Amino acid sequence: MPELRQNIITRDWVIIAKERALRPNEFASRRPAPPPRPSFDPTCPFCPGNEKMTRKEIYRVSEGSHWQVRVIDNKYPALVPEGERVRSLSGVFRSMAAVGYHEVIVEHPRHDLHTALYSPAELGTVLKTYRARYHEIRKDPRVEAVIIFRNHGEAAGTSLPHPHAQLVATPIVPSQIRARVEEAVRYFDDTGECVFCRTLREELLSRERIVCATDYFVAFIPYAALSPFHMWIYPRRHVSSFDESLDGELDDLAVNLRSVLLRLYHGLGNPDLNYSIRSLPLRDRQTDYFHWYLAIVPRVTRTAGFELGSGMFINSSLPEESAEFLRSIKIPEA
Amino acid sequence: MPELRQNIITRDWVIIAKERALRPNEFASRRPAPPPRPSFDPTCPFCPGNEKMTRKEIYRVSEGSHWQVRVIDNKYPALVPEGERVRSLSGVFRSMAAVGYHEVIVEHPRHDLHTALYSPAELGTVLKTYRARYHEIRKDPRVEAVIIFRNHGEAAGTSLPHPHAQLVATPIVPSQIRARVEEAVRYFDDTGECVFCRTLREELLSRERIVCATDYFVAFIPYAALSPFHMWIYPRRHVSSFDESLDGELDDLAVNLRSVLLRLYHGLGNPDLNYSIRSLPLRDRQTDYFHWYLAIVPRVTRTAGFELGSGMFINSSLPEESAEFLRSIKIPEA
Repeated sequence: MPELRQNIITRDWVIIAKERALRPNEFASRRPAPPPRPSFDPTCPFCPGNEKMTRKEIYRVSEGSHWQVRVIDNKYPALVPEGERVRSLSGVFRSMAAVGYHEVIVEHPRHDLHTALYSPAELGTVLKTYRARYHEIRKDPRVEAVIIFRNHGEAAGTSLPHPHAQLVATPIVPSQIRARVEEAVRYFDDTGECVFCRTLREELLSRERIVCATDYFVAFIPYAALSPFHMWIYPRRHVSSFDESLDGELDDLAVNLRSVLLRLYHGLGNPDLNYSIRSLPLRDRQTDYFHWYLAIVPRVTRTAGFELGSGMFINSSLPEESAEFLRSIKIPEA
Repeated sequence: MPELRQNIITRDWVIIAKERALRPNEFASRRPAPPPRPSFDPTCPFCPGNEKMTRKEIYRVSEGSHWQVRVIDNKYPALVPEGERVRSLSGVFRSMAAVGYHEVIVEHPRHDLHTALYSPAELGTVLKTYRARYHEIRKDPRVEAVIIFRNHGEAAGTSLPHPHAQLVATPIVPSQIRARVEEAVRYFDDTGECVFCRTLREELLSRERIVCATDYFVAFIPYAALSPFHMWIYPRRHVSSFDESLDGELDDLAVNLRSVLLRLYHGLGNPDLNYSIRSLPLRDRQTDYFHWYLAIVPRVTRTAGFELGSGMFINSSLPEESAEFLRSIKIPEA
């Protein structure tokens, strides 16, 4: 019999369609492998040597005379740093100047490298770059929230293949983030506990849905995962804001995230995916109730009218089976 | 300068990316037209003559000796009608038997017919079938919400090409629907007005985003549309529940919806799309604060990590321009 599960952090309900569930390997990409890309593309604005093709460089991590990571202004910014947060309220029509930041983080000089194939040190450098930009942008009092995300593959919304992430800083708290904070506050008020810490503890006790546990981070498929192989990576330490993470923690996250990405890469044939960092809005930095985390969504299925019409999801995989499958994937040592 | 807009009904924020906005016709499908499908497919379970290939027939509208519309049990139901709403609450893990209904509405005998190309009378029959099933399922006290939706095209999650809609009846109120009702209640408490009626009135005054206005319905692109050509069709009369609609109203909705679908079909080259009916949860039938409507989402762009990580959207079109474009599309008379 199919089962409904409720995610107590988001309050979302998901239908776990046991009867129509596919085996984990049935979610593997069936498209033919694309032709290999060159490691350098002379027309790519993110490739070394083409730095003049990009907008202003904001930040750089160098390795000898070369750069390893570059942060630049987005060529088509969704938000711009100039101006004030002017609101216009006219009846039901509410608008605001889109003041904020939209940056591109070029993660690696190599045009063709998959995130899963970075070395742990390289991935650690990328995560520390995210943190540096997050930390810097926090200083702007016009910014309320910072969203850092990675799109991999066409189904995940990538337009340029060169490995890069994006950072968007918004002058409002997005309503979904506000709603999650409010839920976390309510849980804390009712129980005296962080709902994320509690979830992590119960997931570690059950072990069924754990994909990878390292010193400071735990990757698992949530009990009420909205889609197949949807994953969360939680810090074991209760930290509300991503940019409060310590160097050693981010080095460990690099090991954990790399392991998860490699399991997806080998287990599901390099699926398109997104990941994003969910962190506390900026007006607070550390609270008892909120806990930052990284969310990974492989794009192995499509949402349809039911999801759009209800906000509910139908998941045609069993989280426990998917986690077991990912744990069983052999990955090369770092 | 880009602009943030807030949808006061959903509280969602959207970035209207004016600088990177595309012209309306740039959203037209660029894929080659698929080979024409036959009007009858002997292997299709929904084609006339193949009725034995489907699960139990629940409802039928006949035309002489043939059927025009059939409602059948979904072969792979996400919810099943047997059983009680048994809950399991164990720490953070909350689950429930997925009791409910999952029906397929075969909308037309012809295998190859696009919804936009039904006659208004045929589309009216389809809408009245939705209402009949909604009305019937309302009688089951275990059901809290009914979601009726239509997937058209692969990007919209269709697996079988024969024109059909689906009905899902859930034993819980989906959290997104609950949140919208709560917002509507709050608006009513604060202003004494239905937020949907108010929105409709202001949209009709402005006219900028109206796509099609008929006797009983108005189709428009919301001021804060989350994605290009995202549309709402509101009844002019304040009605909370879809199944309270009268025959004459559904006949008029057929004319309106057909006009909207034809404009998309001709203007954007038959885009994949979803539509769904958003109606009050079943425990109430008529309220001062809630107003049912139909939402249409053409799948002309993809969501990426930003949307997944924040619940916000970047819309690369201008709602006003898109509405003007759709109004300008010449469509054949009914």
